[in-house]
Amino acid sequence: MTSNQDHLPTGQPDDGAPRGKVIVSVDAMGSDQGPSVVVAGCARSARSDSDLGFLLHGDSAVLEPLVARQPALTGRCTIVHADETVTMDDKPSHVMRHGKKTSMWSTIGALKSGQAHAAVSCGNTGALMAVSMIQLRRMEGVNRPAIACLWPARGKHGFNTMLDVGADIKAEAEDLLAYAIMGVTYFRNGFGEERPRVGLLNVGTEEHKGRAEIKEAHELIADHAEIGRYEFVGFVEGSDIPSDRVDVIVTDGFTGNIALKTGEGTAKLVADFLRESLKSSALALLGAMLAKGALGKLTARIDPRRVNGGVFLGLNGTVVKSHGSADATGVAAAIGLAAKLAQSGYHGRMAERLVIAAQAVQNAADASAQNGDRS
Amino acid sequence: MTSNQDHLPTGQPDDGAPRGKVIVSVDAMGSDQGPSVVVAGCARSARSDSDLGFLLHGDSAVLEPLVARQPALTGRCTIVHADETVTMDDKPSHVMRHGKKTSMWSTIGALKSGQAHAAVSCGNTGALMAVSMIQLRRMEGVNRPAIACLWPARGKHGFNTMLDVGADIKAEAEDLLAYAIMGVTYFRNGFGEERPRVGLLNVGTEEHKGRAEIKEAHELIADHAEIGRYEFVGFVEGSDIPSDRVDVIVTDGFTGNIALKTGEGTAKLVADFLRESLKSSALALLGAMLAKGALGKLTARIDPRRVNGGVFLGLNGTVVKSHGSADATGVAAAIGLAAKLAQSGYHGRMAERLVIAAQAVQNAADASAQNGDRS
Repeated sequence: MTSNQDHLPTGQPDDGAPRGKVIVSVDAMGSDQGPSVVVAGCARSARSDSDLGFLLHGDSAVLEPLVARQPALTGRCTIVHADETVTMDDKPSHVMRHGKKTSMWSTIGALKSGQAHAAVSCGNTGALMAVSMIQLRRMEGVNRPAIACLWPARGKHGFNTMLDVGADIKAEAEDLLAYAIMGVTYFRNGFGEERPRVGLLNVGTEEHKGRAEIKEAHELIADHAEIGRYEFVGFVEGSDIPSDRVDVIVTDGFTGNIALKTGEGTAKLVADFLRESLKSSALALLGAMLAKGALGKLTARIDPRRVNGGVFLGLNGTVVKSHGSADATGVAAAIGLAAKLAQSGYHGRMAERLVIAAQAVQNAADASAQNGDRS
Repeated sequence: MTSNQDHLPTGQPDDGAPRGKVIVSVDAMGSDQGPSVVVAGCARSARSDSDLGFLLHGDSAVLEPLVARQPALTGRCTIVHADETVTMDDKPSHVMRHGKKTSMWSTIGALKSGQAHAAVSCGNTGALMAVSMIQLRRMEGVNRPAIACLWPARGKHGFNTMLDVGADIKAEAEDLLAYAIMGVTYFRNGFGEERPRVGLLNVGTEEHKGRAEIKEAHELIADHAEIGRYEFVGFVEGSDIPSDRVDVIVTDGFTGNIALKTGEGTAKLVADFLRESLKSSALALLGAMLAKGALGKLTARIDPRRVNGGVFLGLNGTVVKSHGSADATGVAAAIGLAAKLAQSGYHGRMAERLVIAAQAVQNAADASAQNGDRS
């Protein structure tokens, strides 16, 4: 592992998940910057973790020379030819119906068939979720899978996690409960936090505020805190996302996606303004040179490449979506995250808890229906 | 005006709006930090703009000594006693029914009766909107009023505007069109931009993405671009909010509020990380001292106090909501914004355009119903 991956969730294998050799199925064709960046990312991962092997999906005529130029990949990378590529403009529904020859389909197929332990793609998020859902299927108790991201935060772990950040544009109360369960398992597994703090994203922290499904979710998530082994801090606002109030932020995929991208855009804006300010005078420039180490630390701390990788939760398999614009460092971070998750065995624990939660919701609904009958 | 208000919308009075003396109706009781901050903000405004006069609403026993300590307010500030105060926990519906004795109600009442030209409150946003709606009424063609904020951005004006950031938790397609019209008038008036660029906030820029009402709004806003004298850039993402792609960002109040607070929270996080980094070594500290001027400029550029004030659009009256946690500088910025808006005459132009837009939507609906009958 390179040092900038140290913060990523560390596996605590305990239920027979694969140890030793981990095979990551990688879609070579989805990156904005072309397959060479993805191959370079694989090579970087290979150099830092000798247990990794790769299945690389895409146009073999393009990939073979790229792989041949990376000594780190010798004997550790199998190219799986795919004729077609999913583009950013392809509709997920189209890819679901006509995408069987794409590198993305093949990437997830290798996970489904057990040839690989985890999958990574830089491609079209909607299509990747659709292809993953149709091949891997949802876990029991999950109606809507979610994408979880890590977010730089003030807390002791340096990060918190937010979900859903873009798998679906809406979420019902039951989905939001499932997101809480999945997010808690992911965060506990990743950071060793026994009782992660869960917050539900809303426009205010008062209980009477917000949309109906969010108020209903507030009740469901509060009721489930004891069984789910988390602390429910109630509603949180946008300003709380990077705070030390909360470890797991639960929201629908529309809101989460907007919040994620707004946060990224704002961080970049401030960093750019800082750079401009420091170039505005000779004195400032000299100051910046002296503070170079410190400013570099800041840049690393908010560098989106460090936390590259949206994890798909709620599917029967570990899929990590890398940023389309990720460079080799970013792709390597996503691969590292996928490998760690595959080794960690979080999947079995999550499945168990989701079934319990779904059962609890069902029981509550039955009880309320019975009460309704009686009254 | 103090120099840090130079960027605020500048009035271009052209339709008989009040010139000369501007009376601002100020709710003295809503601030998190108590009335002294509000009174200090009024005094600051009074010092920088000799045309301003104040109606200050709240507990006169508290306010009288505070005002007496501010020479700038002598002869320019009338205290209007109110027995009660709206708290942050009060439900808007409760305040609407039982809030007639509050300083907030009195503040808006002075605007309704014509005693003041604009109103400012630091209090409970939901209650302020409810009290404003019930007293001032909505403009013709407006179903849902909106709150517009200014956002630091890369464009030549240094800001763009986003609405709704919290008036209502939902918005239909027609509301989003009205937001576009209101935002365009506000931005054009404020920054002298003839054809502001409008973007509709969504989870992707592809036309097939997003919720149904947003896709419908895309069509309405696109169709209305010529009449409304704006350029429609289509869907924008969270990362585009501070960009140079767009001047007016249209979204529902739930999403807008989360985006606004996420942006504020992220900017604060980065600034805090920067401060920590610069204290991490003696060399960095020396560098920071040399770059002090430049870093000060950065701080000013992203200082939320500079753009303090959410403007309520779509009501028959100019109401500005200041941050509850604003200090005297922030309160003064909100008062300055309210005064400029009151003088600018943007209200008449906005009313005209909203009626035209509502008529166009109605005509389109009629035409589509007729076509439906024929087919």
